[in-house]
Amino acid sequence: VARWQPTLREVAAFVSGRLVGAEDPERRIRGIAPLDLASGEELSFLTDRRKKKLLSSTQAAAVLVAEDLPAKVARIVVADPYLAYARLQQRFFPRPRPCGLRHPSAVIEPGAEIAEDVDIGPCAVVLQGARIDEGTIVGAGCVVGRGARIGRNCILHPRAVVLDADGFGFAWAGDRFEKIPQVGRVVIGNDVEIGANACIDRGALADTVIEDGVKIDNLVQIGHNATIGAHTAMAAQAGVSGSTRIGRYCLIGGQAGFAGHLKIADRVRVGAQAGVIGDLDTPGEYWGTPAVEKRRWLRAIAALFRLAEKKRLKRGAE
Amino acid sequence: VARWQPTLREVAAFVSGRLVGAEDPERRIRGIAPLDLASGEELSFLTDRRKKKLLSSTQAAAVLVAEDLPAKVARIVVADPYLAYARLQQRFFPRPRPCGLRHPSAVIEPGAEIAEDVDIGPCAVVLQGARIDEGTIVGAGCVVGRGARIGRNCILHPRAVVLDADGFGFAWAGDRFEKIPQVGRVVIGNDVEIGANACIDRGALADTVIEDGVKIDNLVQIGHNATIGAHTAMAAQAGVSGSTRIGRYCLIGGQAGFAGHLKIADRVRVGAQAGVIGDLDTPGEYWGTPAVEKRRWLRAIAALFRLAEKKRLKRGAE
Amino acid sequence: VARWQPTLREVAAFVSGRLVGAEDPERRIRGIAPLDLASGEELSFLTDRRKKKLLSSTQAAAVLVAEDLPAKVARIVVADPYLAYARLQQRFFPRPRPCGLRHPSAVIEPGAEIAEDVDIGPCAVVLQGARIDEGTIVGAGCVVGRGARIGRNCILHPRAVVLDADGFGFAWAGDRFEKIPQVGRVVIGNDVEIGANACIDRGALADTVIEDGVKIDNLVQIGHNATIGAHTAMAAQAGVSGSTRIGRYCLIGGQAGFAGHLKIADRVRVGAQAGVIGDLDTPGEYWGTPAVEKRRWLRAIAALFRLAEKKRLKRGAE
Repeated sequence: VARWQPTLREVAAFVSGRLVGAEDPERRIRGIAPLDLASGEELSFLTDRRKKKLLSSTQAAAVLVAEDLPAKVARIVVADPYLAYARLQQRFFPRPRPCGLRHPSAVIEPGAEIAEDVDIGPCAVVLQGARIDEGTIVGAGCVVGRGARIGRNCILHPRAVVLDADGFGFAWAGDRFEKIPQVGRVVIGNDVEIGANACIDRGALADTVIEDGVKIDNLVQIGHNATIGAHTAMAAQAGVSGSTRIGRYCLIGGQAGFAGHLKIADRVRVGAQAGVIGDLDTPGEYWGTPAVEKRRWLRAIAALFRLAEKKRLKRGAE
Repeated sequence: VARWQPTLREVAAFVSGRLVGAEDPERRIRGIAPLDLASGEELSFLTDRRKKKLLSSTQAAAVLVAEDLPAKVARIVVADPYLAYARLQQRFFPRPRPCGLRHPSAVIEPGAEIAEDVDIGPCAVVLQGARIDEGTIVGAGCVVGRGARIGRNCILHPRAVVLDADGFGFAWAGDRFEKIPQVGRVVIGNDVEIGANACIDRGALADTVIEDGVKIDNLVQIGHNATIGAHTAMAAQAGVSGSTRIGRYCLIGGQAGFAGHLKIADRVRVGAQAGVIGDLDTPGEYWGTPAVEKRRWLRAIAALFRLAEKKRLKRGAE
Repeated sequence: VARWQPTLREVAAFVSGRLVGAEDPERRIRGIAPLDLASGEELSFLTDRRKKKLLSSTQAAAVLVAEDLPAKVARIVVADPYLAYARLQQRFFPRPRPCGLRHPSAVIEPGAEIAEDVDIGPCAVVLQGARIDEGTIVGAGCVVGRGARIGRNCILHPRAVVLDADGFGFAWAGDRFEKIPQVGRVVIGNDVEIGANACIDRGALADTVIEDGVKIDNLVQIGHNATIGAHTAMAAQAGVSGSTRIGRYCLIGGQAGFAGHLKIADRVRVGAQAGVIGDLDTPGEYWGTPAVEKRRWLRAIAALFRLAEKKRLKRGAE
C-alpha cells in the first residue's frame, strides 16, 4: 500500500496541472487505477480518446486529461497525462533503493568488483572480472559474466538476465564449425533496464555496448559487438544480430529482428515483427519484412489484398 | 519403466474402444510407441492418415485407430485415437503428485503462502507475498515474484518460469524514459502449465490474468495486464503485448505476436508467426502479418507468387 | 591477456599463409583486433571487401587477406581469412578445459552419471537419470533434466540451457486439454554448443536428438521429437516444432520457425524470420513466410512493391 496520500490540490501541483471541476480539492488520494476500476480514493487517467466515454461512469476522484473535457468527474489538465501518471506512480511507489543486500544463495566470485550499495538477489551469479556500479539491482537468478561492466542505477530483472554469454561465432572449416573464442566484453551504461530471460552476448573482439538509459524487455537477444544507442527501447522478443549499431532514441517493436552489420539512425521506430535487412539512414517508422517506410508497407499490403480480391471476383470463386 | 501392464482387452475397455483382429486379447502391454518403433509389447496409434501404410509393417501389439482399417495388426477403434493415447499414457506414467518437497537449495522468503503439498524444485525462488495453491509443482530454478497468485494443480516447468517480472512500462519525458512502477499482480488459475523460460509480467495497475486450464509453452512472453482466457494454448515463442485480452479455447501458433490493447474472441486460432494488429471478433483461423482469415491470406500469397511469376515470364528473365 | 606471442613469420606458418610486405617478420603479435581498432602489436583481418579502404589507415602489424592487395600494411595471404582468424584466436585463447569442477551451489542429484572431468557451474541443476560425457562444460544455472544424454566436449552456456523440459503435448478432450506425459529423452551428441536460455524439450515417445557438432544460439526452442542433423547451426530465437527433422550442415537464420512433422534436406539455408511450413527436399536457400527459394521470394517482394507503386502513381495519390 502506498504511504503518500496527497490531496487533489497537492496532486495537481505535483504534476503542474490545473484542477477543474473538483467538489472537494482537499479530498485525499491513495493511488491510481484504470478508469473502470478506480474507486473514489483513486486517481485515473485518460490517454486513449476512444475511452472518453468512461469519463461519465468512472468512480475515480479525479482524472488526468490532456485537454479539459466536460464531465461530472474532476479533471486535472496536464500536458502529458501518461507522463504525469508515471511520475505520480513513482511518488506513490518509490523505487526500492538497493542497500547492499547480497542474498546468501547468490554466488559472487572473488575478483568481481561490486559497488557497496548494489543488491544481488537470490541465486544470482556474478563471475570474476565483472564490475557493477552504484545503485544497480541484480535480480534473482541473473548471471553476470566475466567481462561485464554494468553502470549505475541499472535494474536487471529476476532470473534471467544473461549477460556475457559467448557470442555465436563460428568459422566453417569444410566439414565442421570451428569456434571463434569470444574475448570482448559487455559494457552497460547507466539507468539501463534489462528484462527477464534477455541475453546479451559478449563481443568477439571489441565490446557489445548498451548505452545509457536503454530499456530492454524480456526475452530480447543482443548479438556480439552490437551497440544499442542511448535511450532506445526494445520490446519483448526482439533480436539484434552481431555488429549491428542501433541509434539513440529508437523504439523497436516486439519480435522485430535486425540482420548483422547494419547501421540504424537515431530516432528510428521499427514495427513489431519487422525484419530489418539493410541500413536505415533516416529517422522514421519502418514496418514489414523486409522493413520499409511504414506508409510504403501499408500500401503494399493494401495492394496485395486488392489484387487477391480482384482475382477471386474474376474467377467467381466461392 | 511403466508399472501398469494391461492386456489388450483391458486397454480397449479403458479407452472405451473396440478391439478388432487381435489374435490374443490377453497379450500384455508395457507402453506406447510410434508405429515404426513399437515392439510387440507396445501399443501404437494412427492419427495421421498419411501414415496408414505403416499399419502393414508395424510390430505393435495393437494400434489405436479412428475407423477400422483392414490390416494384419490388431486395432482398437476409438472416437479419438490421440486422446486415447493421451489417457493411456497418463495411466502408464501417472503424473507425479507433489508431496511438499522443498529443495534445500530453493529460496522461499518468509511471507510466501505456499500450500502444504506444493513441490518447490532446486534453486527455485519464491518471494514474499506470493501465493501458491494445492497440488502445484514449481520446477527447478523458477522465480515466483512478489505479487504472484498461482492456483491449484499447476506445473511451472524447470528453470525458467519468470512470473511477475516488471511490465515494460515507461513514459517518455522528452529526453529519457521515466519508469512506471508496476504495481499489479500476476494471477494464475488452476490446471495451468507454463513452459521453460516463459515470462509473465505483473500488471501495471490491474492484474495480469492467466485463467484456468491455460497451457503456455516455452519462451512465451505475456505482457502486463494481458488476460489469457480459460483453456487457451499458446505455442513456443509467441508473445502478447500489454493489456490484450485473448479469449477462451484459443490456439495460438508458435512465434505469433499480438499488439497491445486488443480483444480476441473465444475459439480463435492464430497461425504460427502471425502478427495480430487488430481485434478479432469472430471465431476462426487467422494467418499472416497483418493477420487475416486464413483463406484470405492463402489467396493473397497465391496471388503474389502468380504476379511475380507473370512478371518473370513477360520479361523472359533467366 | 593472451600468453602466446608469435612473430609475424610464425603466424604466417601457423595459418599456412604467405607473408607479404612485412618490414620486420620477427615482429611479435599479442592478439587480434578489428581493422580500425588494432594496434601495432595486433593482427587484423579483412573478410568484407567493402572494408578494403581500411587497409590504408589500419595500425595493425599485419592483416589476414584472401588475395594480395597493394597496401602499406603487411599482409598474410590465406585461403580463408575468417577461418584463419578463428584458428589463431583459438591459439591465443585456448578453450578452457573442464577439470571436474562442481560448484558448491550446483545441485547434482544422486543417480546422475557425470564424467569425471565435466565442469558444473554455479546454481546449475543436474537431475537423476541425466548422463554427461567427458569434456563437457555445464554453465551457471543450466538445468539438465532427467532423461538427458549429453555427449563429449559440449558447452552449455550460462544460466539458461533448459534441457529436457516437457514437450508441449496435449490432447483436446472436448472441454479442456489432457496432458500427454512426455516420456522420451533429449539426446545430445558430441561437440555441441547450446546458447543461453535455449530450450530443448524431451521427446513425447521417442527421443529429441541433437547430433554431433550442432551449434544452437540463445533463446532457441527445439520441440519434442525434433532431430537436428549434424553440424547444423541455428541462430538466436529460431524455433523448431515437434517431430520436425532438420538435415545436416544446415544454416538456420534468427527468428526462423519450422512447423511440425517436416523433413528438411541437408545443406539447406533458411533466412532469418522465415516460416517453413512444408518439407524442403533440395539443398538451397529459402526465405520468407511461407518459405520459398530465396530468388522466388525476392521476385515476389519486388513485384509487390512495384504493384503498390503503380497503384499509387495511377491514383496520383499523395
